[in-house]
Amino acid sequence: MSKGTILSGMRPTGKLHIGHLSVLENWVKLQQDYRCYFMVADLHSLTTKFDETENLPNDIREMVLDWLSVGIDPVKSAVFVQSSVTQHAELHLYFSMNIPLSWLERCPTYKDQVAQFGRQGKDITTYGFLGYPVLQAADILMYFADTVPVGEDQLPHLELTREIARRFNFLYKTELFPEPQALLGKFPLVPGVDGRKMSKSYGNDIAISASSEDVRKRVNAMVTDPGRVRREDLGNPDVCIVNKYQEIYNNELLAYIQKTCRSAERGCVNCKKELYNLVEQLLAPIRERRAIYENNTYELQRDYLLKLKNKTRTKDPDTNERDEAPVHRKFDRYWKKAGRKEKETLKKTGSQVIADYKSGLITLNDVQSLLDARFDFVSLILQKGKERAGRQAVKTIEQVREAMNLRY
Amino acid sequence: MSKGTILSGMRPTGKLHIGHLSVLENWVKLQQDYRCYFMVADLHSLTTKFDETENLPNDIREMVLDWLSVGIDPVKSAVFVQSSVTQHAELHLYFSMNIPLSWLERCPTYKDQVAQFGRQGKDITTYGFLGYPVLQAADILMYFADTVPVGEDQLPHLELTREIARRFNFLYKTELFPEPQALLGKFPLVPGVDGRKMSKSYGNDIAISASSEDVRKRVNAMVTDPGRVRREDLGNPDVCIVNKYQEIYNNELLAYIQKTCRSAERGCVNCKKELYNLVEQLLAPIRERRAIYENNTYELQRDYLLKLKNKTRTKDPDTNERDEAPVHRKFDRYWKKAGRKEKETLKKTGSQVIADYKSGLITLNDVQSLLDARFDFVSLILQKGKERAGRQAVKTIEQVREAMNLRY
Repeated sequence: MSKGTILSGMRPTGKLHIGHLSVLENWVKLQQDYRCYFMVADLHSLTTKFDETENLPNDIREMVLDWLSVGIDPVKSAVFVQSSVTQHAELHLYFSMNIPLSWLERCPTYKDQVAQFGRQGKDITTYGFLGYPVLQAADILMYFADTVPVGEDQLPHLELTREIARRFNFLYKTELFPEPQALLGKFPLVPGVDGRKMSKSYGNDIAISASSEDVRKRVNAMVTDPGRVRREDLGNPDVCIVNKYQEIYNNELLAYIQKTCRSAERGCVNCKKELYNLVEQLLAPIRERRAIYENNTYELQRDYLLKLKNKTRTKDPDTNERDEAPVHRKFDRYWKKAGRKEKETLKKTGSQVIADYKSGLITLNDVQSLLDARFDFVSLILQKGKERAGRQAVKTIEQVREAMNLRY
Repeated sequence: MSKGTILSGMRPTGKLHIGHLSVLENWVKLQQDYRCYFMVADLHSLTTKFDETENLPNDIREMVLDWLSVGIDPVKSAVFVQSSVTQHAELHLYFSMNIPLSWLERCPTYKDQVAQFGRQGKDITTYGFLGYPVLQAADILMYFADTVPVGEDQLPHLELTREIARRFNFLYKTELFPEPQALLGKFPLVPGVDGRKMSKSYGNDIAISASSEDVRKRVNAMVTDPGRVRREDLGNPDVCIVNKYQEIYNNELLAYIQKTCRSAERGCVNCKKELYNLVEQLLAPIRERRAIYENNTYELQRDYLLKLKNKTRTKDPDTNERDEAPVHRKFDRYWKKAGRKEKETLKKTGSQVIADYKSGLITLNDVQSLLDARFDFVSLILQKGKERAGRQAVKTIEQVREAMNLRY
């Protein structure tokens, strides 16, 4: 039995780092009990990065690969790109009509962020950035999500979402929208290896997808107690980054580690080696899973479609003794429009697809999905996620328009 | 040859009055030379009337009937409801991301209107009202309209649309959006019969659809020179509302009218009778056409579909010797969901539809359209308008997303 519905998302920033891991591990757990929508928040990214979109497609791809490798199950959860479900823009517009400007202007994060970006020489006082909480409300309320996993800093935004829901219900004399509740999680703040905030742009991060070699390099680059010059000097774990990591990843042994550091029984080289092993233990299975998804075989894609079909119990509309003709026609249509690289994929996998279709393993709809995603696993997931989220979104908008008397 | 593309619209306020007539007559003329999109701006109406939507469906209907009765030809022009083409909300959101707040805050009409509504005790400082020019830009640029018929007061908004187009083109290194130009029209300001602004809520308006009796009543209610008590008193046309109307509707004879008024050769009763005849001349053909559309016969609808098919040169996908079965299946599906009133319509017209389909006059798509619009002429027009506008809107959004790198 599902406890309820969850909407959560992340801005697409490309490869994630281990600082994101605790949030993702929480998502993975939530999948067991909740109906989950996990959203790539590309529109939110536009609020501050409208002038830097070149890497967006690649950033989305890398982030979704990280999600999958950590254990997000696209069969269980709908994984989709926010802008691909156009109803988000629609609901955002309907909400915007009755949200007082003052609600947005007094949002605590708004002025902070404008100031912060201003110090970096960037003006983000755009109409869209001011309206960011309206879009967030549309995201959440679109799926009638009753539960939203958030950090404490996000509580004011969620309160605004509740106000928006209440205002809509009041204005249009309806009880359409529930007031979503926060599911507070405690997520440790992982510092960068140099002690600053962990960030790809600082080069002080450990990527979730880092190779063993990368992990070793980054752990070795960690700043330890600068006062401890020789092995025999007594250490001060309070000023040591390695110790901060031990606190997060080796918490049970922390008292022992700190004691032996202070007494110089423990050396920094060994301490880093221990930490390296711990991080490796954490990342090795993730790396392994990522390799499978990056490998992107046709079998992986077929397997996904079969599992999805099983979950949603879509009946196969075709029967035995299938005619190859419709599949050939579909292929022909794609072939005409396909680029060189796509043609290679189509050629390589085409006969397998036709064989699977003939044997009844996949349907004509599956073939269409594979063609639409050009046999790319991440694309296929995002396309199916879009369909799944879109089905709910269409229903929601219908009810919203009915409530607002937008009947034409 | 088309000179270009025009987008224009009106907020749905229900039955229009003769003050709107000059704008509409301009639209009717423009239809000859331009590809026209005429939009029922229901979303714009939400910016200030988000809490008064009960009459929206009826207001839309009455306004479209007025448009048609004046001579807007839904075969030539796409007549549609703004909110029914969801891409408007989408483009609005994309634009909003890079529009500086200051552009909107310094829009001359913004503060004026906030103050004006404030005096009426209504706070319209909502997020959506501030963003009104962004939505307007999305409306215009969606259809790559190069020409926008406006009054002078709208020029600052159009300038903002051009700035939004330029900014998009600059940010995403594209030349997608043209900079639309104003087509300035001079539209005489028709006062209400009591001299105040003409408004339905003041009861001082003459509706485009007014009956002869209504017109007579309203003309008789017109305020003439209050200083002229007796027929023999010399008149002062400068303070006479009838004279204002003569100026608009009888301009050629104005000098003569004013002279005979000042010399008391002309009496107010006769002057009003003359004016009544003029307004009647103007409104009688409009009234006649409205009656046809209100009459809403199946023949009218079929005629519209045939003309539209001819214009868009859609080939009839069916051939001779048609099977009635698919039409019956469609009817059955609607019958199940239909309300009592709809059932009557279906029953009454059903056999004619089937006969027309069998004879090859209308296609299965036409039948679907008729069923979707439940055999209502205005609904049918708005549905077809939505399809026609929607086709362009889908293409535009595809190009916009491509330019913005929103490729998933």
